[in-house]
Amino acid sequence: MRFLSDNAAAACPEVLAAIVQANEAGAGYDGDRWSARLDDVVGSWLGREARVFAVGTGTAANALALATLCPPYGGVVCEAHAHVVDDECGAVEAMSGGARLCPVAGAHGKLSVPALERFVAVLRGDVHQTPPRALTLSQATESGTAYHPVEVDAIAAFARGRGWRVHMDGARIANACVHLGCAPGELVRGLDALSLGFIKNGGLGAEALVLFDMGLAEELAFRRKRAGQMPSKGRFRAAEILAMIETGAWRRNAAHANAGAARLAVAAGTRLLHPVEANELFVDLRGGAADALRGEGFSFYDWLQDGPGAARLVVAWDTPEPQISALEAALRRLPPL
Amino acid sequence: MRFLSDNAAAACPEVLAAIVQANEAGAGYDGDRWSARLDDVVGSWLGREARVFAVGTGTAANALALATLCPPYGGVVCEAHAHVVDDECGAVEAMSGGARLCPVAGAHGKLSVPALERFVAVLRGDVHQTPPRALTLSQATESGTAYHPVEVDAIAAFARGRGWRVHMDGARIANACVHLGCAPGELVRGLDALSLGFIKNGGLGAEALVLFDMGLAEELAFRRKRAGQMPSKGRFRAAEILAMIETGAWRRNAAHANAGAARLAVAAGTRLLHPVEANELFVDLRGGAADALRGEGFSFYDWLQDGPGAARLVVAWDTPEPQISALEAALRRLPPL
Amino acid sequence: MRFLSDNAAAACPEVLAAIVQANEAGAGYDGDRWSARLDDVVGSWLGREARVFAVGTGTAANALALATLCPPYGGVVCEAHAHVVDDECGAVEAMSGGARLCPVAGAHGKLSVPALERFVAVLRGDVHQTPPRALTLSQATESGTAYHPVEVDAIAAFARGRGWRVHMDGARIANACVHLGCAPGELVRGLDALSLGFIKNGGLGAEALVLFDMGLAEELAFRRKRAGQMPSKGRFRAAEILAMIETGAWRRNAAHANAGAARLAVAAGTRLLHPVEANELFVDLRGGAADALRGEGFSFYDWLQDGPGAARLVVAWDTPEPQISALEAALRRLPPL
Amino acid sequence: MRFLSDNAAAACPEVLAAIVQANEAGAGYDGDRWSARLDDVVGSWLGREARVFAVGTGTAANALALATLCPPYGGVVCEAHAHVVDDECGAVEAMSGGARLCPVAGAHGKLSVPALERFVAVLRGDVHQTPPRALTLSQATESGTAYHPVEVDAIAAFARGRGWRVHMDGARIANACVHLGCAPGELVRGLDALSLGFIKNGGLGAEALVLFDMGLAEELAFRRKRAGQMPSKGRFRAAEILAMIETGAWRRNAAHANAGAARLAVAAGTRLLHPVEANELFVDLRGGAADALRGEGFSFYDWLQDGPGAARLVVAWDTPEPQISALEAALRRLPPL
Repeated sequence: MRFLSDNAAAACPEVLAAIVQANEAGAGYDGDRWSARLDDVVGSWLGREARVFAVGTGTAANALALATLCPPYGGVVCEAHAHVVDDECGAVEAMSGGARLCPVAGAHGKLSVPALERFVAVLRGDVHQTPPRALTLSQATESGTAYHPVEVDAIAAFARGRGWRVHMDGARIANACVHLGCAPGELVRGLDALSLGFIKNGGLGAEALVLFDMGLAEELAFRRKRAGQMPSKGRFRAAEILAMIETGAWRRNAAHANAGAARLAVAAGTRLLHPVEANELFVDLRGGAADALRGEGFSFYDWLQDGPGAARLVVAWDTPEPQISALEAALRRLPPL
Repeated sequence: MRFLSDNAAAACPEVLAAIVQANEAGAGYDGDRWSARLDDVVGSWLGREARVFAVGTGTAANALALATLCPPYGGVVCEAHAHVVDDECGAVEAMSGGARLCPVAGAHGKLSVPALERFVAVLRGDVHQTPPRALTLSQATESGTAYHPVEVDAIAAFARGRGWRVHMDGARIANACVHLGCAPGELVRGLDALSLGFIKNGGLGAEALVLFDMGLAEELAFRRKRAGQMPSKGRFRAAEILAMIETGAWRRNAAHANAGAARLAVAAGTRLLHPVEANELFVDLRGGAADALRGEGFSFYDWLQDGPGAARLVVAWDTPEPQISALEAALRRLPPL
Repeated sequence: MRFLSDNAAAACPEVLAAIVQANEAGAGYDGDRWSARLDDVVGSWLGREARVFAVGTGTAANALALATLCPPYGGVVCEAHAHVVDDECGAVEAMSGGARLCPVAGAHGKLSVPALERFVAVLRGDVHQTPPRALTLSQATESGTAYHPVEVDAIAAFARGRGWRVHMDGARIANACVHLGCAPGELVRGLDALSLGFIKNGGLGAEALVLFDMGLAEELAFRRKRAGQMPSKGRFRAAEILAMIETGAWRRNAAHANAGAARLAVAAGTRLLHPVEANELFVDLRGGAADALRGEGFSFYDWLQDGPGAARLVVAWDTPEPQISALEAALRRLPPL
Repeated sequence: MRFLSDNAAAACPEVLAAIVQANEAGAGYDGDRWSARLDDVVGSWLGREARVFAVGTGTAANALALATLCPPYGGVVCEAHAHVVDDECGAVEAMSGGARLCPVAGAHGKLSVPALERFVAVLRGDVHQTPPRALTLSQATESGTAYHPVEVDAIAAFARGRGWRVHMDGARIANACVHLGCAPGELVRGLDALSLGFIKNGGLGAEALVLFDMGLAEELAFRRKRAGQMPSKGRFRAAEILAMIETGAWRRNAAHANAGAARLAVAAGTRLLHPVEANELFVDLRGGAADALRGEGFSFYDWLQDGPGAARLVVAWDTPEPQISALEAALRRLPPL
């Protein structure tokens, strides 16, 4: 019973069907009729004019976006345990030519304007210190929380007021969106670019790098090509993205995962370390609880950054109901801390 | 009737079936049972111990391989019109941290030991000049010719004798292999790394970066991750590669494409610019021939690097027989040059 | 009366004389007779076989050293406010091709084995996280403290035990050495490379990048060239470095500066924020003290990273005695905190 | 008797005097009164508003300029044997994050509009091919010829018409200027940046990177810092540059060197391979002539890129008259080819 990560889930049926249907000879790269619709479909879904580049991983989306938004001598402000910090092996640094991540600690994985104000208060602004030029925030966060649209807007406004570009790592934006009950477009106001994640939510191998600043589109096209992220049979990635949006699979999949996580959150009770606002929960499993759960057949990761005994439990779009119920029961059986 | 490029062909049935079969929840990244077999299956097929990394494009395979084989201050010797030179928008430079491509002109797209000897004869060997540290050769070449195993061995020996690492861009290695009637392993002796291409030959979205120098495997794993080339659902790429090899689709697909090109070559007669040893032909279409063919519904690229009026015709694994026959007839109808 | 920084001091007479004497036509780059002696003179001074590369700034020395010691996908462990973090605008990231600095907070600017143990305890060791591959420590530290040889050895041993390369930013190593009363060689055991600073201590424009791992010498030579750090008239930089060592100016200059700082430290009393073990002191100037001192004509930098009201006072090799005495008296006149 | 290179000459008296005079404690980095005058003095000399950054080598000037003018995915058009191609070990690639040099063969080392037109005629303009974004031309060229202002203007106009930025490697611009009898400003119209060389012409260790596009000044300041090219005692480099211009040493030094080369050119007669328009001559020394000259005590470099038996003879600002006369006589004694 795997609660390790949603990124290892299967692809959902709509995605697989779309790939099968897109299997025809045709124009190479982005010249096909699926790719041709990406800008419109994603743009309409997000309620903003957009230029969409399909890429193969979330790491590629994040790094290409930030390399385009931040000069090589600039800094990218991010939460201290953001995915770009802890889980992408320096992809931002690599693709940007050496830009620096500037971690700012947040509560429950969230950046906030006060934390950003403290960060900038000690900047000198001279040529010797890396100047922040971009900010990235994760939706949902690496602690399983979601930024409310008002929070996104406030952080984006703060950043733009200082001349920083704004990016969102939306690897789990569908989960956040479902939790918040808002339209996707409410989460992307004020962004310059978005890593629009599908893979964790039932996709097969395509993420969408969404650019809102049209003036950077040509540059990003070149950067994507030289990063080896422009497949010759682009129709497959485009079809997958279209299917996720147009069939509504994005919402159904996220809703399933969120609902499972919500049930587990109730069961976890006081062991919860962060609010559960997407499909992940972080729990304190000290006192033998981790071993107990593993002994019952549940697999999950320890999460040391949240302290000794911390663990992460992730519900995927395809986690079977019986497994969720079994874990729910097991959590309830744990002794209080 | 498209003779533009094999890279826009469909995926072959074996590949699509493999993807459907691999669609299960499981371990993320490379932890699945398909990925686990890659080293053995590819290694056996090539007759050498190998470490195999699935990546999303040939550009990624080439650039990651060369970034691992060549230091950032080194040069990569290559044919003057190699794919890394003309068609990858500086991916090698990007991923290597600024290594330089050192083009050496070859006859019919092929490097040769005499040409390499002329190249090295004018090198100074001081610290001011970019020192060559790697060599890459393309199989089949960008001019549609194939290196005989003896040629590969001679070039690799020359390179290794000077301390250069050796890489092969095998985007069309299946076509070369079928043409030469040799075992794949005969083409990779003396290499440090191989970009093992499948996509042009009926794949969907996976190329194999094959490393023969085990000592570089850890480094390449980190480089691949930070290049955004390590998908979380690695099973799909691995399954695709396994299917191409284990079903024999690689050979059948290449044989079809080669046979078509061979027929067109005969029909092209004296208009041929290079020997046809794979699935591409390069023809002199001056005197109105290009317009005539396009007027009959054939699409193809001009190929200015081969001179005014030059064009490239590519037969894919799925180019329909009637289209090949139609082009064959049309070529025969062209007036002599 | 400037207590802003030692890096703006004059060049000492021995250095200027050496430059005048080296002004002859001769061999370019490193082919001259001064450059030819660098390895031996510096190596003897440090008691280790060394390969010495003269460069133009401490930033260049640090970044070239770390780019050579750490792969682009690796991390460089350093103190949280190291010069490479706060004062070099991402030079390490730039020259390394995107390596990441991994800051570890230290007491009074010093890394320690317990702090390093806490840092490594939460590393996962997978391919997704930047793997530390080098460590750099500053001598003297950015807080004006000095590592005792035993401390250097312990940190270096810890690092080497994990396979990390070890570098020292010795921008003020002379000051540390004089304070500790040790031989320079006692401070460099266990290092792979040293940025041997002279400019702050009376030099004009040359720092020595000292490499102890001979196997990296060729690579570093290429990296230095392409970084634009190999001047055609290398004799001037070499002569300057030789003069600093062979005339004993390094010791005399550092001793003057240290002695001044020590007097100021006594005068600062409880306002001191860190032990004074070189030529810098950090003081708490709250309660109007900063304004008072500036009103008397002393210039110095605020030092926000040490808290509100913190300031840095630096004594240079050529700070006039009367100015030191004046500041000493002024500090004594400050009201107690 | 050294005719190897002007880059190994002594520093001229005016430069040395300026350095001695600038030796005072003061503001660090660029805060001193010499640095403060750079923009005005150089700008006035060139007749254009300019922002001037002193750097330590010509390689640094070229690479920083081109890294600022060309995006990492772009190409830098240059003559096939430009210094950036043959003599800087990939500095442009390193500092730009992987931009590519695009060599265009020129006659006698000079780019020309027709050659550029042939180059662009075969560009495809798609995302797969490195797009040229900058052009650099060398004044004087690597073959010892000089671009007339009309030629510079035509090439710059061609480049700007295609959206390329324009840079001049002016390592020997003084020599070109003296030969042409023009004002320096006539050579820099239409440029975005200039590497203004002094070291080969009697400087000690400072080159001026001159930026004409003010909009790039902030970026260049950051890039220079992180390249380790911003010395803490910037006054020394600034003073040197000011002295070269304000004392007229630039002209006197170049005139001496040019005159010597002109005399040698006459003596070389039909052995000359290129017009002599600066301080270098390239000669065909086949038939034992090279050995004969070396046997008489003259040292110089073979110049294989100009063919077998080719050699380069360079006259420096301080090459003694008797040595010039001796070589003149020796050249006259050589048998005709």
